[in-house]
Amino acid sequence: MGQVVTFGEVLMRISPRGNKKFIQSNVIEFFFGGTELNVGISIANFGGKVKHISAVSNDVIGETAISYINKFGVDTSSIVRSNRPLGVYFLEVGAVMRSSTISYNRSHSSFSEIKPEMVNWEEALIDGDWLHWTGITPALSQGAFDILKEGLTLARQKGISVSADPTYRKGLWKYGKNPKEALIELLHLSSIFIGGINEMNEVLDTNYSYSNEDFIEASKLLMEKFPSIEKVFDKIRTSLNSSWHKIRARMWNGEEFKETEDLDITHIVDRIGTGDAFAAGLIYGLQRYDDYKAMRFASAACAIKHTYEGDVNLATVGEVTEVLEGNTSGRLNR
Amino acid sequence: MGQVVTFGEVLMRISPRGNKKFIQSNVIEFFFGGTELNVGISIANFGGKVKHISAVSNDVIGETAISYINKFGVDTSSIVRSNRPLGVYFLEVGAVMRSSTISYNRSHSSFSEIKPEMVNWEEALIDGDWLHWTGITPALSQGAFDILKEGLTLARQKGISVSADPTYRKGLWKYGKNPKEALIELLHLSSIFIGGINEMNEVLDTNYSYSNEDFIEASKLLMEKFPSIEKVFDKIRTSLNSSWHKIRARMWNGEEFKETEDLDITHIVDRIGTGDAFAAGLIYGLQRYDDYKAMRFASAACAIKHTYEGDVNLATVGEVTEVLEGNTSGRLNR
Amino acid sequence: MGQVVTFGEVLMRISPRGNKKFIQSNVIEFFFGGTELNVGISIANFGGKVKHISAVSNDVIGETAISYINKFGVDTSSIVRSNRPLGVYFLEVGAVMRSSTISYNRSHSSFSEIKPEMVNWEEALIDGDWLHWTGITPALSQGAFDILKEGLTLARQKGISVSADPTYRKGLWKYGKNPKEALIELLHLSSIFIGGINEMNEVLDTNYSYSNEDFIEASKLLMEKFPSIEKVFDKIRTSLNSSWHKIRARMWNGEEFKETEDLDITHIVDRIGTGDAFAAGLIYGLQRYDDYKAMRFASAACAIKHTYEGDVNLATVGEVTEVLEGNTSGRLNR
Amino acid sequence: MGQVVTFGEVLMRISPRGNKKFIQSNVIEFFFGGTELNVGISIANFGGKVKHISAVSNDVIGETAISYINKFGVDTSSIVRSNRPLGVYFLEVGAVMRSSTISYNRSHSSFSEIKPEMVNWEEALIDGDWLHWTGITPALSQGAFDILKEGLTLARQKGISVSADPTYRKGLWKYGKNPKEALIELLHLSSIFIGGINEMNEVLDTNYSYSNEDFIEASKLLMEKFPSIEKVFDKIRTSLNSSWHKIRARMWNGEEFKETEDLDITHIVDRIGTGDAFAAGLIYGLQRYDDYKAMRFASAACAIKHTYEGDVNLATVGEVTEVLEGNTSGRLNR
Amino acid sequence: MGQVVTFGEVLMRISPRGNKKFIQSNVIEFFFGGTELNVGISIANFGGKVKHISAVSNDVIGETAISYINKFGVDTSSIVRSNRPLGVYFLEVGAVMRSSTISYNRSHSSFSEIKPEMVNWEEALIDGDWLHWTGITPALSQGAFDILKEGLTLARQKGISVSADPTYRKGLWKYGKNPKEALIELLHLSSIFIGGINEMNEVLDTNYSYSNEDFIEASKLLMEKFPSIEKVFDKIRTSLNSSWHKIRARMWNGEEFKETEDLDITHIVDRIGTGDAFAAGLIYGLQRYDDYKAMRFASAACAIKHTYEGDVNLATVGEVTEVLEGNTSGRLNR
Amino acid sequence: MGQVVTFGEVLMRISPRGNKKFIQSNVIEFFFGGTELNVGISIANFGGKVKHISAVSNDVIGETAISYINKFGVDTSSIVRSNRPLGVYFLEVGAVMRSSTISYNRSHSSFSEIKPEMVNWEEALIDGDWLHWTGITPALSQGAFDILKEGLTLARQKGISVSADPTYRKGLWKYGKNPKEALIELLHLSSIFIGGINEMNEVLDTNYSYSNEDFIEASKLLMEKFPSIEKVFDKIRTSLNSSWHKIRARMWNGEEFKETEDLDITHIVDRIGTGDAFAAGLIYGLQRYDDYKAMRFASAACAIKHTYEGDVNLATVGEVTEVLEGNTSGRLNR
Repeated sequence: MGQVVTFGEVLMRISPRGNKKFIQSNVIEFFFGGTELNVGISIANFGGKVKHISAVSNDVIGETAISYINKFGVDTSSIVRSNRPLGVYFLEVGAVMRSSTISYNRSHSSFSEIKPEMVNWEEALIDGDWLHWTGITPALSQGAFDILKEGLTLARQKGISVSADPTYRKGLWKYGKNPKEALIELLHLSSIFIGGINEMNEVLDTNYSYSNEDFIEASKLLMEKFPSIEKVFDKIRTSLNSSWHKIRARMWNGEEFKETEDLDITHIVDRIGTGDAFAAGLIYGLQRYDDYKAMRFASAACAIKHTYEGDVNLATVGEVTEVLEGNTSGRLNR
Repeated sequence: MGQVVTFGEVLMRISPRGNKKFIQSNVIEFFFGGTELNVGISIANFGGKVKHISAVSNDVIGETAISYINKFGVDTSSIVRSNRPLGVYFLEVGAVMRSSTISYNRSHSSFSEIKPEMVNWEEALIDGDWLHWTGITPALSQGAFDILKEGLTLARQKGISVSADPTYRKGLWKYGKNPKEALIELLHLSSIFIGGINEMNEVLDTNYSYSNEDFIEASKLLMEKFPSIEKVFDKIRTSLNSSWHKIRARMWNGEEFKETEDLDITHIVDRIGTGDAFAAGLIYGLQRYDDYKAMRFASAACAIKHTYEGDVNLATVGEVTEVLEGNTSGRLNR
Repeated sequence: MGQVVTFGEVLMRISPRGNKKFIQSNVIEFFFGGTELNVGISIANFGGKVKHISAVSNDVIGETAISYINKFGVDTSSIVRSNRPLGVYFLEVGAVMRSSTISYNRSHSSFSEIKPEMVNWEEALIDGDWLHWTGITPALSQGAFDILKEGLTLARQKGISVSADPTYRKGLWKYGKNPKEALIELLHLSSIFIGGINEMNEVLDTNYSYSNEDFIEASKLLMEKFPSIEKVFDKIRTSLNSSWHKIRARMWNGEEFKETEDLDITHIVDRIGTGDAFAAGLIYGLQRYDDYKAMRFASAACAIKHTYEGDVNLATVGEVTEVLEGNTSGRLNR
Repeated sequence: MGQVVTFGEVLMRISPRGNKKFIQSNVIEFFFGGTELNVGISIANFGGKVKHISAVSNDVIGETAISYINKFGVDTSSIVRSNRPLGVYFLEVGAVMRSSTISYNRSHSSFSEIKPEMVNWEEALIDGDWLHWTGITPALSQGAFDILKEGLTLARQKGISVSADPTYRKGLWKYGKNPKEALIELLHLSSIFIGGINEMNEVLDTNYSYSNEDFIEASKLLMEKFPSIEKVFDKIRTSLNSSWHKIRARMWNGEEFKETEDLDITHIVDRIGTGDAFAAGLIYGLQRYDDYKAMRFASAACAIKHTYEGDVNLATVGEVTEVLEGNTSGRLNR
Repeated sequence: MGQVVTFGEVLMRISPRGNKKFIQSNVIEFFFGGTELNVGISIANFGGKVKHISAVSNDVIGETAISYINKFGVDTSSIVRSNRPLGVYFLEVGAVMRSSTISYNRSHSSFSEIKPEMVNWEEALIDGDWLHWTGITPALSQGAFDILKEGLTLARQKGISVSADPTYRKGLWKYGKNPKEALIELLHLSSIFIGGINEMNEVLDTNYSYSNEDFIEASKLLMEKFPSIEKVFDKIRTSLNSSWHKIRARMWNGEEFKETEDLDITHIVDRIGTGDAFAAGLIYGLQRYDDYKAMRFASAACAIKHTYEGDVNLATVGEVTEVLEGNTSGRLNR
Repeated sequence: MGQVVTFGEVLMRISPRGNKKFIQSNVIEFFFGGTELNVGISIANFGGKVKHISAVSNDVIGETAISYINKFGVDTSSIVRSNRPLGVYFLEVGAVMRSSTISYNRSHSSFSEIKPEMVNWEEALIDGDWLHWTGITPALSQGAFDILKEGLTLARQKGISVSADPTYRKGLWKYGKNPKEALIELLHLSSIFIGGINEMNEVLDTNYSYSNEDFIEASKLLMEKFPSIEKVFDKIRTSLNSSWHKIRARMWNGEEFKETEDLDITHIVDRIGTGDAFAAGLIYGLQRYDDYKAMRFASAACAIKHTYEGDVNLATVGEVTEVLEGNTSGRLNR
């Protein structure tokens, strides 16, 4: 099996320990993240081959970011260095009814200011057989949008699968491009849609409800308008409070509708990147299993991610499979 | 709106990290607290103007205490320095069925040995329009009692609102004064009573039960015996275990009885100072909202405090208001 | 009352903080543990006199291990030093549906390579009136088995009570001895059996179910085959997930069957060593209380251990007794 | 005495602990700094009244920055909040022959994008009798230059002393302004020049050597070309290695030349901000002492700063005075 | 050889990490210390038998203090618990020309308020053949003085050696007793005098200089006035700065004068307790070696203590002996 | 240029922070090291291509070790996993006259028990043009010796350069092989000798002194007896104390003798692995520079390593070159 290729910003994540606020202690911790990178690292942790494409800073932070990605055996040979700083985000972790809070420092980062000549897609995709993108990348800058589109176009030509997580984050789109039009252009180059009612209503200009019936109708309409899209996967989260969630998933693959049961996740450790863990599980699963098992694998991967600090799912295939098989009692492994 | 003035001991709080005991690790953390200071800082975090009056040590710990209070923008200009050490308390944080444990080292502290000439109330209250006291201060020493009484008397003369949280902590009263008589003297100088059945029975020499009916009767009798008191607010806590509580509140303002619904708080981070968070929310609310909304604001403030480490509620008005409006699912703020 | 004597391996336990994996941070923590030592330290924390017998390394780690045991007032005068390193285990703490993971580095440790001449049982038992062993020790090496058997034999001669926790951990038995035969030899020298259906089926070659009826039948048969055994105590754990368990206990003392109610333990801090906390509570209890109260004390001890980091139950008799009496709401102790 | 007013960027300083690199550990620490703020906080620590003017981010980091400045009793009422992130710098601390390394992320920060309408100088200088600026601020952006010039102009009109530390950092000047011309404009509004041969050669277009004779000549020429300048102070550092420096100072005040002896600083803890400590000592000293004593105070302040982690000199007047008086043996204060 | 018995206050020592001040970080560390305890633990680390007598608090801090002393194998069976808190000291560690700073919170501690009936000297000295005291203990309270005097008197009767380190710390003597008279009373019960010119001038009312000649004269006079004193040992420290000291020692044993060469100690880690390390080395040495070797052992012990964090010398006899033999190059031990 | 291939044990290095002992704190840190790996990572940090061959454990520690090596971009594809634990070493860092102490737990590690079939040298050397070994590997076990010899033999056949650092560590050779004979066999397969008088005397059975004259004579004799050896490089360390060393180097390449001047290294951060840094600098230099410059590069690399915590030199080529060029004043890089 070839490489899964991910393209997107690498962010340094800085946060106080536990549930503290920055005002409370000067001892803090960092990890690296970024939605597409999270997907890539998670797949590498399952044993898949992964390459991540990005632009990082030409200083000790960029060097540390690359070494962080190397740790997981992800191929960093297509990451370029630039004179702009790496994007940073500051996180305060909530609990119970207190929300977690994120502040970004990314608007002039090395990735946002990426230029088309910085990525050689022919070379980058040479071993690729899957390309994953999200709605964050086209939101950042014209350069990021252009490079992404170029990559998707080449991927389609080469018959590489393209998965799209077209999350629409309103606060990001500042460089002038119309978000909806941008996403539509890119979805026409994608084969797997990872998203729910909101994302479909956004690009279809519809008003579907959250019911399963509407999910199926919306999916059908989506596939009609975007013929490249073959399958739709949706993850549904119910938040009891910051520390207690439930997760389930549903799918329409053009032929059948399936859904999973709720997974109950109380005593959450870190919920950042759980959507990325779902996407990673799905990509890994679709490369190896049938659609329904892939979705259940994705769902289990998403659930277990809530138990790791940091953006990234550190679970192995074995650990996810245990949860998929219903073994959620967490007994001690010696 | 003028300053809320708080008067009371500043304590250094020292504890191991997480749920450890001191015997387990030599790496520990400190914050500062003290019931009246907690109220003051919390109100400052809501955006209120606050002055705290106290006596701290004339050494690096006293200097650190003042810098800690400054951090929150609380006016420290009326805090005096003395040759006595700052009071300290050592905390081990319990979990599940294990209780948290506190050991005090405060009996000869800079605040306990405060002398009347150390506080100039005319100057201290110059911008004040609210003065808050608790039952801890008069319990510490004759000096503390005398200064408090002097301040309350002046406040009454100047028409400043006085809120009382007459918590009776038996172990503290060691200098000879009769606790009940002391509290009665001080309540005659107070307008808002923050306390429940136990506190009312104590000063009324009655035997009311915890029922709402008895609460109303007790409140009426209290207002009869203490004509200065205009309103009574009570916070009720139900502990499932060290990590899981429920909070609700009720009030009698001379005209109507109101109560809030239970707020469910599971996965508690730190329960110290949650009563102070209630008092702070109430004072801030009574200055701005009607009695019922003030109480609901107080109740939400109390609940969200359980999610912050340290003695102090770090929530903003916006965060408390979200909880007040029932938005307790803790979604991620980007 | 004389000393409780425990004999077994001392292990250095190394783990990342919180729920981190080793791959996530280079800052880690250590404690010491080992199933028999855990029992000993816990009894010392209750105020009992305890001696632990072991072999530790002749380097800074062995020195640190001894100082760790000294901390709790356990008699270390019969611990010998050898040129072999101390056994180590590496722990990653799970959460929710993620299991905790342990990796051992113990197979050629100072304890595994213990030689009979290294323990002088006559001297070691001089103040002893209870000897406790577990199924871990005979699994480690011929030397460990031989010394243990020698000690049990002498204990029987001197009329010292012998408690057995014959846990069978399959992965450990590598030196050639047949596990079942070994355990049978040792159980013939024991008076108190701490174990459940699995352990009884193992040595009886039976197939009893988990029902109370079968528990009683199995216990009766056990006492018939092993006339030295007087009482059987069983602890039953139900795992909802890694962070939420329930514990109850049952017993057959030859005359009556008793069981406790479930203790609900949500927001678990650390579940390692909770079985040892049960054994410790039981031994301490049997020396002082009737069988049923001893079992309830053991059960409460087991439950409260889930709130301490590390292998060892740090609760006092007072704290356990509070839980035994149903006071599990964890109110603040000032 | 009135306030010393400082105007400049607030930077979050993030660094690994000790001499580690970011690649070595994910546990890091932060302080806040910025050359003009460092001067302000240091003067506040001496007991002087200080106001700092800046623009910080409208998020948890900006909130933490303000609370940090508040800690030291510096007036933050003229600091504005904006939608841009706070500037950050990442520091790796060298040792022996390894240099410390700094990477900045400041080019689109809240301060760089400050706009003239954001600072009300009339109000900001209301209690001011000293204004301090450095060459960093005009290097950042047209907005920063314009606001600074506006402030200096008003200060001159009001007869407020203006001290200039016209450090020229080449890498910063990117917005189009000619550095030399900018500094010349601003120096014409300044009364105290804190800088050495390099800075004077820069604005005078001369080629003076480091000798005392040339220093005097250069100073005279400077005062001739910039009639507003009354005094010149220079600090000279000799680096044996990263951990061992020597510091001395010299001055020309239009009338006499003076210099101090070398202060030997081995076992350096942190050399960042030691120049700012000199400037702060000088300003504090010039307000209270004669020129020569002021310079010796500044020199001692600079030296002792090398013993504090972080950007800021935490020494009191008493501690600096001890060093000034030659008491450098560092005996224990009980 | 019997036990060395030490009697004195146990203090909790709390300090920020590295060279930080409390104002800089809320993460701190603790150890335990106290001049006489430091002597005791150091001797135990050499392998000597030691008992420490004290009064500690009846809370988690007292419990932690006892466990700390147990760690080193020091006999804690004569330590009593009381309702008063344990004494605390707060330390900020200086560097270069910055002094370290200590603030005490000890004046009403469990030890200061010790009562004669709390120590049973007959029992405490049962295995003792050396008793060590310092000038700190009689300075604290009448009770401490009385108990100490009672112990010394009994020791004399039993022929136990008594070493005195009559450090005079002026700030402590607050309970009314005249310091000089108190020390004179106690020195009449002592056999070994550990102190220098200052201490001798203090009790002799003389004015000797620091020269060796005067040291000999002073020692002779001391022995004349205090016939019980047999030997005088003096340790001389030269401080280049906080991080760089030199140490040498000299003695007069009634027959001969000896002195050691300077030991050069640069890159000091922690200088607290280095005098106690000298005393400990001396006592251990006098029990085993001739006077001159004992003094050189003491001197080496003192020097190596500067390399350990905390109050206590953690060196073994082997490590001290290496330094004594001139092997100070610190090569790696594998 | 092809890969430098290193073969040797990977050790987990565990140590307390700063200069603490394990007995002082339960918070510790880990890195990975091992003499040959240190060489490999250092060369990778210079930008060279490197592959490391080893056997690590099949658990979370082995996984963490591989991710650690990946961080630096070293090729880990030839590292195998086994059921044995990873070797560990425990380090306490000395200071001044206190030695650092290391305790190993490696005798039955995954690497010691490596079997010939576990390494495929043909594949491992496919891109190699340099192979480095040390005297540690053949000391560990027959398996390690055999595999090493097989690799060296193949390397010679393929014309790959072989560098030898034949350090003789007496305590390790326990499996029966005669150390001298083993080293002689392996040196006959080597081209570069990195070692001094001791190592040459060992294999030559001679008695040369440390003088330059004897160094040249010894080198000549060595090349005579071992015709494969072309060059000899020696690094000389002078230890003033644990914190202050001097380093110089000398060489004989069959034609000329050269030596460097002393590099003075005071305020040492970590001296472990400085010899490996020398070897790495030498290999990197010999591949690119003339012999004398290579030696000076090696010497500078060795010196700067003393400023990094951990086993590994983290310096870049640029940083080493600065030191090589005499720029040792460590000025701040912005």
